[in-house]
Amino acid sequence: MVYELHYWPTIQGRGEFVRLALEEAGIRYIDVARTDDGEDVMLTYLDDAHVTRPPFAPPFLKAGKLIIAQTANILLFLGERHGLAPATTSGRLWTHQLQLTIADLVGEVHDTHHPIASSLYYEDQKREAKRRAHYLIKERLPKYLGYFERVLERNPRGSNFLVGATLTYADLSAYQLIAGLAYAFPKAMARLGKRHPNLMRLHAGVAVRPRIAAYVASERRIAHNEDDIFRLYPELDE
Amino acid sequence: MVYELHYWPTIQGRGEFVRLALEEAGIRYIDVARTDDGEDVMLTYLDDAHVTRPPFAPPFLKAGKLIIAQTANILLFLGERHGLAPATTSGRLWTHQLQLTIADLVGEVHDTHHPIASSLYYEDQKREAKRRAHYLIKERLPKYLGYFERVLERNPRGSNFLVGATLTYADLSAYQLIAGLAYAFPKAMARLGKRHPNLMRLHAGVAVRPRIAAYVASERRIAHNEDDIFRLYPELDE
Repeated sequence: MVYELHYWPTIQGRGEFVRLALEEAGIRYIDVARTDDGEDVMLTYLDDAHVTRPPFAPPFLKAGKLIIAQTANILLFLGERHGLAPATTSGRLWTHQLQLTIADLVGEVHDTHHPIASSLYYEDQKREAKRRAHYLIKERLPKYLGYFERVLERNPRGSNFLVGATLTYADLSAYQLIAGLAYAFPKAMARLGKRHPNLMRLHAGVAVRPRIAAYVASERRIAHNEDDIFRLYPELDE
Repeated sequence: MVYELHYWPTIQGRGEFVRLALEEAGIRYIDVARTDDGEDVMLTYLDDAHVTRPPFAPPFLKAGKLIIAQTANILLFLGERHGLAPATTSGRLWTHQLQLTIADLVGEVHDTHHPIASSLYYEDQKREAKRRAHYLIKERLPKYLGYFERVLERNPRGSNFLVGATLTYADLSAYQLIAGLAYAFPKAMARLGKRHPNLMRLHAGVAVRPRIAAYVASERRIAHNEDDIFRLYPELDE
């Protein structure tokens, strides 16, 4: 069985958290919407009345007959099956908890450039975006990054990983989070990075893992861009 | 072992999704922050450097030595242990997927009255709130409610529950979602309710379950109020 990942073909977005897990685990997959007519195939799963368990939105993973949506849910599935999460119940819940906290911040970052409505252009909510970005940088990023830094500091198995002594999908997601934040808010992150050394080391450590490094250098990795969640709008950086 | 729920003592908030699951399953629990000095106890878990796996925020559930945070994660745990989720992997993932989608909408509803920053008063972001609420009612509520209505319509085991032929935590959460929306947006929901009859029936069906009815009538159920996620600000309703 070859997994099928269904996600928007021109952005990293939430699909990237899944791609990183698939790549690190060395799992064969098809990035469906990036193949010919693949985006139509993806949309069929959202719209077809015969799909009894439809996703609300991409990303979703097709694993045989299973269709799994919601990024954290897909990672819960992959983590358990492919060694990217602890085998214990407590470890799996803790890893998932961290993933859901990362997802919360990702949502807040999205809303920084779309504080009023996803359906409006950035230009039509720019004033509100500027206001929201100020609070993201001043309050929310320090709160979230401080939290993950503490989690690394307190990990009884060492500060290389968020959970235990080996890599989990939460580490891959933290890597993607830091990469995205560094792209979107270079000035703010230059300052904040210094205060969160363990988190920055985690990011650097994931970046040099052979499979991740090969993936990021490949054409499979979509470049950051301004249709994505993490957008470089210099006027929002501080 | 008696579970400890830790959540803000004066609002339903995200903790309510956990309370409903605990109540329906007939599980003994202490709502810690509502006991004497209980809020300080709750805050200790967030701040104490000895907690190696700290929650980012309430709610969290203490189950013996386990501390589980993130609403959907707590429900994943409770659902599996206490018969509020299917026993199959596919059923568990589907239930969790629905819960995460409900959580997304709950987050959007929160941001309707706090589109700029949680740390600011509503009064200081009222203009933006009005603008965001317009799109919530016009676009997001129809999209989400239409989705859950379709899920009910397509359930091969009937339209009484979101998953299979028996109640899951996703149904309890959908009940809470509809109850909250009906409180916060009575005019909009009077209209939208008519277009989503299965979802309204699900809400009504959960409301008359003996344990839920007893709970909602008890002092354990905190009344809706304007410090909560679902707030009645008539100027935001349409």
